[in-house]
Amino acid sequence: MSHQLGRSTWEFSKVRILASAVSVGPKEGRGPLAKDFDIIHDDLHIGQDTWEKAERKLFEEALDLAVQKAGLKKDQIDLLIAGDLLTQIISASFTARYAQIPYLGVYGACSTSMESLALAASLVEGGYANYVVSGCSSHNATAERQYRYPTEYGGQKPPYAQWTVTGAGVAVVGKGLIGPKVRYATIGKIIDMGLKDPFDMGSAMAPAAVDTIEQHFIDTGRRPEDYDLIVTGDLAGVGYPLAKKMLLERGFDLSSVYNDCGLMIYYSDQEVFAGGSGCASSASVTYGHIMKELHKKTLNKVLVVATGALLSPVTYQQGESIPCIAHAVAIENEEE
Amino acid sequence: MSHQLGRSTWEFSKVRILASAVSVGPKEGRGPLAKDFDIIHDDLHIGQDTWEKAERKLFEEALDLAVQKAGLKKDQIDLLIAGDLLTQIISASFTARYAQIPYLGVYGACSTSMESLALAASLVEGGYANYVVSGCSSHNATAERQYRYPTEYGGQKPPYAQWTVTGAGVAVVGKGLIGPKVRYATIGKIIDMGLKDPFDMGSAMAPAAVDTIEQHFIDTGRRPEDYDLIVTGDLAGVGYPLAKKMLLERGFDLSSVYNDCGLMIYYSDQEVFAGGSGCASSASVTYGHIMKELHKKTLNKVLVVATGALLSPVTYQQGESIPCIAHAVAIENEEE
Repeated sequence: MSHQLGRSTWEFSKVRILASAVSVGPKEGRGPLAKDFDIIHDDLHIGQDTWEKAERKLFEEALDLAVQKAGLKKDQIDLLIAGDLLTQIISASFTARYAQIPYLGVYGACSTSMESLALAASLVEGGYANYVVSGCSSHNATAERQYRYPTEYGGQKPPYAQWTVTGAGVAVVGKGLIGPKVRYATIGKIIDMGLKDPFDMGSAMAPAAVDTIEQHFIDTGRRPEDYDLIVTGDLAGVGYPLAKKMLLERGFDLSSVYNDCGLMIYYSDQEVFAGGSGCASSASVTYGHIMKELHKKTLNKVLVVATGALLSPVTYQQGESIPCIAHAVAIENEEE
Repeated sequence: MSHQLGRSTWEFSKVRILASAVSVGPKEGRGPLAKDFDIIHDDLHIGQDTWEKAERKLFEEALDLAVQKAGLKKDQIDLLIAGDLLTQIISASFTARYAQIPYLGVYGACSTSMESLALAASLVEGGYANYVVSGCSSHNATAERQYRYPTEYGGQKPPYAQWTVTGAGVAVVGKGLIGPKVRYATIGKIIDMGLKDPFDMGSAMAPAAVDTIEQHFIDTGRRPEDYDLIVTGDLAGVGYPLAKKMLLERGFDLSSVYNDCGLMIYYSDQEVFAGGSGCASSASVTYGHIMKELHKKTLNKVLVVATGALLSPVTYQQGESIPCIAHAVAIENEEE
């Protein structure tokens, strides 16, 4: 049986997000979506002695809570598919050590949220696993010092820079009877327009989001109006209008349904420059806010397009441009 | 239809490795398996001006050759699943930019070779793709300076250290009529025995290999004697005897069928300390040597157990122990 639709879309009929959980830091807890997050920490250290342990702690507690909400125990989970932004994806791997679930690590920068969900859905639908946990994390302080400068430098940033979201979002994927269905996943290819400024992730990633959204419409025959909401992961203030304009030029008017997780997660006066970024941007908004709206049926069909900038500090220093990618997953309530 | 066998094994019936290709550096080209590698470079720079570009070049040419050997064009490949050892898996992502194939990045350190093959097989068998390319790369000079010290320091190493293999190995996975079948994949969980010495990867990873091999036997009902060859990825001189001994203590005598890719790829007098490591260790040996032996039918049933040490320089510096994992894939000729 083929689950392949067009060039790069996977179709699912039986897979649901049985439960999800989100744990975030203090700034996210003061944002407009605070009520949708399960755990909010008022201490960026999350009670740990390193930033890396803090990020890991967020991931572990989101995983525990998601599994508990699904009415399961960790030893009933067949597989953990997870990633994060840190080198050698240590947050995910150390969470896998804690959880003791068979584990596959993935890396798609901020697209990791939907990469892991797409793989989880394909493995459940394909009969390789009954329950898969997918998820990712990011932490402002771990990302800052890895990708940019030691935070102690107090380095100045341009207004088009973004603020890495501190949080972890986890989903439990399975074939149960309740919960929104994972309907499609469109896997992106690398788009690199030659941009080299590591502060301007929004501009670099926007064309990748556009490419995947267009491919999704081509592969599925759907149109923007088929969705209640289409969100990109973290294009924020610079990339969001760019993606909107590019899509319009290609004949897709998303204006009535389009938003961006990096714009949704903070108030504009929260000193986050152009908005949120990091794989926890799309993961927190999707597994916190969007899942709640789907359960309330204020939203019924959502396309989450997680965008990733696949640079490294080494490629930047070597003068390379930024390869970007986006993966889209359609999450929706069953039609009644 | 369930493809799940026991705790963490996936079963396949229709998936084959249609073609594979391996590109390596000069030291590997002087080793005992030289005749099994498709491309051998006598210059560690592979004609590039950075080590990172050199590694990427190996990956790109192995990918091109594997696709060509399969009688396909790159635009017929539905998906690339790839990873490497570098931060933000830049070798894989930049290769994906070059190939322009929809792409999912994975990270399992040196277990990436079998992680990517297992996922490729599951997606082909599950009907999500007709052709998937899976692969990974490592390069001695990129890995040394990232994980240990700048090579210019000329830092001394203990005899139990290993030598990162310079190479890339790529497989084309699909449902064709010829080529060895991918029969099982056993997905590992994290094993961490508390070891902290980043030079002694063999001792750290051996228990993870043992855990996955034992789980593979439990899930499939197979025994060591069902295989012509069981290879671990890169346990080398220290980890290999340790794994063998631990397996014997658990009732599995592998002595007549067990070898290690890190021991097979170099002659003992090649100044590689305890032997080879890096994800190209298992990828080069599997997609070069083992694939050729399977085609010649000198081998018919092989279990490749790729082992990964999921540490990072940051976790090491923060005093953490080394989480390890192993994924096993059974590759075999169809019984006549």
